[in-house]
Amino acid sequence: MYNKTMHGLGSRRSVIRELFEFGKRRAAEVGAENVFDFSLGNPNVPAPDCVREAALDIISSEDPCAVHGYTSAQGDAGVRAAVADSLERRFGAGITPDLIYMTCGAAASLTVTLNALTEPGDEFLLLAPYFPEYAVFVSAAGATPVVVPYDEATMLPDLAAFEKALSPRVKGVIVNSPNNPSGAVYPRELLEKMCAVLRAKEKEFGHPVVLIADEPYREIVYGGAEVPFLPCLYDDTVVCYSWSKSLSLPGERIGYIALSPRLHDAAGVYAAVCGAGRALGYVCAPSLFQKIVARCVDASPDIAAYESNRDLLYGALTDFGYTAVHPDGAFYLFVKALEEDANAFSDKAKELGLLIVPGDDFGAKGWVRISYCVSHDMIERSLPAFKKLKAMYDAK
Amino acid sequence: MYNKTMHGLGSRRSVIRELFEFGKRRAAEVGAENVFDFSLGNPNVPAPDCVREAALDIISSEDPCAVHGYTSAQGDAGVRAAVADSLERRFGAGITPDLIYMTCGAAASLTVTLNALTEPGDEFLLLAPYFPEYAVFVSAAGATPVVVPYDEATMLPDLAAFEKALSPRVKGVIVNSPNNPSGAVYPRELLEKMCAVLRAKEKEFGHPVVLIADEPYREIVYGGAEVPFLPCLYDDTVVCYSWSKSLSLPGERIGYIALSPRLHDAAGVYAAVCGAGRALGYVCAPSLFQKIVARCVDASPDIAAYESNRDLLYGALTDFGYTAVHPDGAFYLFVKALEEDANAFSDKAKELGLLIVPGDDFGAKGWVRISYCVSHDMIERSLPAFKKLKAMYDAK
Repeated sequence: MYNKTMHGLGSRRSVIRELFEFGKRRAAEVGAENVFDFSLGNPNVPAPDCVREAALDIISSEDPCAVHGYTSAQGDAGVRAAVADSLERRFGAGITPDLIYMTCGAAASLTVTLNALTEPGDEFLLLAPYFPEYAVFVSAAGATPVVVPYDEATMLPDLAAFEKALSPRVKGVIVNSPNNPSGAVYPRELLEKMCAVLRAKEKEFGHPVVLIADEPYREIVYGGAEVPFLPCLYDDTVVCYSWSKSLSLPGERIGYIALSPRLHDAAGVYAAVCGAGRALGYVCAPSLFQKIVARCVDASPDIAAYESNRDLLYGALTDFGYTAVHPDGAFYLFVKALEEDANAFSDKAKELGLLIVPGDDFGAKGWVRISYCVSHDMIERSLPAFKKLKAMYDAK
Repeated sequence: MYNKTMHGLGSRRSVIRELFEFGKRRAAEVGAENVFDFSLGNPNVPAPDCVREAALDIISSEDPCAVHGYTSAQGDAGVRAAVADSLERRFGAGITPDLIYMTCGAAASLTVTLNALTEPGDEFLLLAPYFPEYAVFVSAAGATPVVVPYDEATMLPDLAAFEKALSPRVKGVIVNSPNNPSGAVYPRELLEKMCAVLRAKEKEFGHPVVLIADEPYREIVYGGAEVPFLPCLYDDTVVCYSWSKSLSLPGERIGYIALSPRLHDAAGVYAAVCGAGRALGYVCAPSLFQKIVARCVDASPDIAAYESNRDLLYGALTDFGYTAVHPDGAFYLFVKALEEDANAFSDKAKELGLLIVPGDDFGAKGWVRISYCVSHDMIERSLPAFKKLKAMYDAK
């Protein structure tokens, strides 16, 4: 009657979505004040003023047929020009509007890119810890996800393991920095080494290996951490972007794919991207929000709020005796579970109202992800529960 | 380097999109007043006032984090309740909010449904003339599209051919009434006969055959033509809807999937729908427009404008000697080409500035589709070109 794989994906859902839905039900039962939902990367910082201003102005003053009408499948030409200009001003990688394809958010950027690239037998490398939906997207595109383990000391990709995993079957590598779930920003030196390995492997294999830069957290960094723009480091790069986090618009589904002008057969890949968008049913990216992001292309989120959350949570949890990765970007704290089984640990946390995501699905067994894109007040109110949880384990 | 099927889909594009892009380039060259673009189903009637009012009110007064945040993957609970209530008031088919899945428009409704249902070896029937992207969507989901020819006398599905095409491999049938491209509204009697055939085949095969009702034009009918709600006629029905046409929001990508409560294993299919949405990268339907359509769920488009266009165009073209299907719904006029090769005919029309879509891809060789969701003025100004085109053929 139905496709078994899809039924499985829909029945199990992602562990993150499952916790989020649980939190909504739980809040209705015991009161929202007793649920500390750290499950979802749903920004609590409101969209910058320019979003509201642009929305009100466009809706009030422009022709509704133009505002809400179909755009070209690859996105409105003016919008793509605004995005390309902004990228050029900031990074100078030579990305032109005809290399930009507007999408319905980061997930769509990835599924469209993966479906465009995948040929039978292809593999894509996922660098642990990684966003679990990557494995779903790679498999659904007909390719095989291959997980590269992390370096236990740094929680960053293990370079030797990376090199070893790069077989001739590898079509691409998904790089996600600032990283979800660890909050780590990959240092330039590490990225340069990875790119050197990739270049050597391209030469050895005689075919391109595509670096897919998934960058929804590019603008969310602290203390001036640098996020190198990968098309400047490596030719065969495809950037997948979304304004979900940078403009706090996760529900609006708006992002883009940008191809490096030096990507092997960039015009051919662009056509494949257009074809994949069409085959998956993405007629165009939402038109009003295309126009809004074009006006807000250089707007910044309120980083200070996230940074203050980070400092409070990281400080308190390490004080309590937890081990955590110090995050330089995104809004996730990656914490070592207090027992080997992170699922069991997450379940115990749930009993205290703490909704935190076990890390097994991120490719990091024994860790949990805590999203701190929540109110400062909720973090403060949650701290006694975190303290109690630690005490429970200490008492064992 | 890339997937060949996707590259093909992206290079060739749909003939409709191709003409639309040509029209935009052509207008820049010779002036918009000399291009009569009848290619795209992009409504020229502005969205009803309630859309602007809802948008301004929500953006001005509601919490931006809630307005623009993620909703549940299946859509905001309140929005699904509003949609289900509206369906229940109008049709009484017993569809509850837990059977509604909000989507990024009609194409997404279809791709998600097809990916949810398809098992290896499945076929889906397309009833000619049909929207050409159906074949793309069915193939991309891993199934085989099988075209059922039309009855030459009525341009409606040929019942005998329909019955013959229904093999045990058929997982479902896509029904699109009011029809794109013909503008025909399938009569109740025909639908009842089709459903009786389907029920007999289900019994014979011992498995369900799903009727997929693609209904973006449901509200766009003239002279009180009836559009029966298929879940009331046939148990194994999935409705795919979009507000693109009824609220003139084609660029905003907002629609839904509704399962009949009597669908075989409806809960299982719903889970598969959720899974397919996830696998294709549809995290949720655009959140602001979910909230807008919930407020405008019973709003009506300005049918009178389309009806007046239809009367002008149908009247003039039949006066000039063209043969056309009299459309009772949608905003398309299906016209017999003046030579056997509709592509050659469309090319000659193009030279006179008339952008009309050859019907070969619709499964109706020798016909062309003229979208009359354009300004009345443009239709008036285009009539001399249509007259000239006819005269050119008459002179041969």
